[in-house]
Amino acid sequence: MEFPSKLLEKAVEEMSQLPGIGKRTALRLMLHMLKQPEEQTMHLANALMKMRTEIIFCNSCHNISDKEVCDLCANPLRDHQTICVVEDIRDVMAIENTQLFKGIYHVLGGKISPIDGVGPSQLKIQSLVEKVKEGKVKEIIFALSSTMEGDTTNFYIYKQIKDYNIITSTIARGISVGDELEYADEVTLGRSLVHRVPFENAFKAV
Amino acid sequence: MEFPSKLLEKAVEEMSQLPGIGKRTALRLMLHMLKQPEEQTMHLANALMKMRTEIIFCNSCHNISDKEVCDLCANPLRDHQTICVVEDIRDVMAIENTQLFKGIYHVLGGKISPIDGVGPSQLKIQSLVEKVKEGKVKEIIFALSSTMEGDTTNFYIYKQIKDYNIITSTIARGISVGDELEYADEVTLGRSLVHRVPFENAFKAV
Repeated sequence: MEFPSKLLEKAVEEMSQLPGIGKRTALRLMLHMLKQPEEQTMHLANALMKMRTEIIFCNSCHNISDKEVCDLCANPLRDHQTICVVEDIRDVMAIENTQLFKGIYHVLGGKISPIDGVGPSQLKIQSLVEKVKEGKVKEIIFALSSTMEGDTTNFYIYKQIKDYNIITSTIARGISVGDELEYADEVTLGRSLVHRVPFENAFKAV
Repeated sequence: MEFPSKLLEKAVEEMSQLPGIGKRTALRLMLHMLKQPEEQTMHLANALMKMRTEIIFCNSCHNISDKEVCDLCANPLRDHQTICVVEDIRDVMAIENTQLFKGIYHVLGGKISPIDGVGPSQLKIQSLVEKVKEGKVKEIIFALSSTMEGDTTNFYIYKQIKDYNIITSTIARGISVGDELEYADEVTLGRSLVHRVPFENAFKAV
């Protein structure tokens, strides 16, 4: 694409560095911005800069936060001995939405994935193991994606904490609520049979 | 969605103002930025601000430009008596890519669309009519989208310039090159029959 303006070209180029945004989409976004009031672009640019420079990660759970210790970790009403291990902030938000988890989180910041160049040392695994070693933890719940990378990460952490006499669990794999059985893949269906639940417990929320 | 950080929330909110970007996509983009080096976000924010504040529209054709008169309008080798009327810069870039048009452009900046609150006065129609009145134009080629709004805009302009003894034309509507006939809609197919082309001309590029 040949742009009639270097300024536009530069903006499109920077924007199309973001995942899922190609040059055409970026150009469409720029043309939209040019039609909107100037403040809107200024607000966006300032919000991006502020977020990138000022955001803090919680000292304890490594979640994104505005403070040294995030609201979840600072809440005395939560069960600080039950830790849910998740990949990133989106999973924290998703689990919080269920309103069924009252423990605290530990955000790894990714999954072990050699293909993407992510090894255990780039993730916040060590601090989780430390917490376990210090005897502060009663239960660890693994809530990573059910993929090769997720399972690898689960197993890597499990190996390091299994001797410390704590409960470890993973979230249940099975048929999604509302799903048709005939479209379920056999692995999921198989697991849902093996880990069947007593009928009188099945509809309990907590 | 409840965000654990106001900074993140603000950035997601501003980003999701853009068309086609919802809150989930915006959050995904922000998490990507947080994993990338700080400079990348700074470069993006600066490019956006610079583009929005410093970009100029060409005095003559109203296309986006870095100068008062854009490179296309300033080029003495182009035919300044043949004007191609287009909606926005993307159309200019698309037509320039064909390398088959040697005239200049006139960028309206949109189409007449009462539903979206866009009337003729918001578009650069008057300056086009002025050019015609001044006798500088031999041919006007309408190259707007083949939609209700495009046709309305074409017709609105046509009415104002038809008495000035210039050639007016629209780009041909027909079956796209490479398309299967059976999937073409009947209006397009009908038009392509009515406006059939002598066979010996059909494969000429110019």
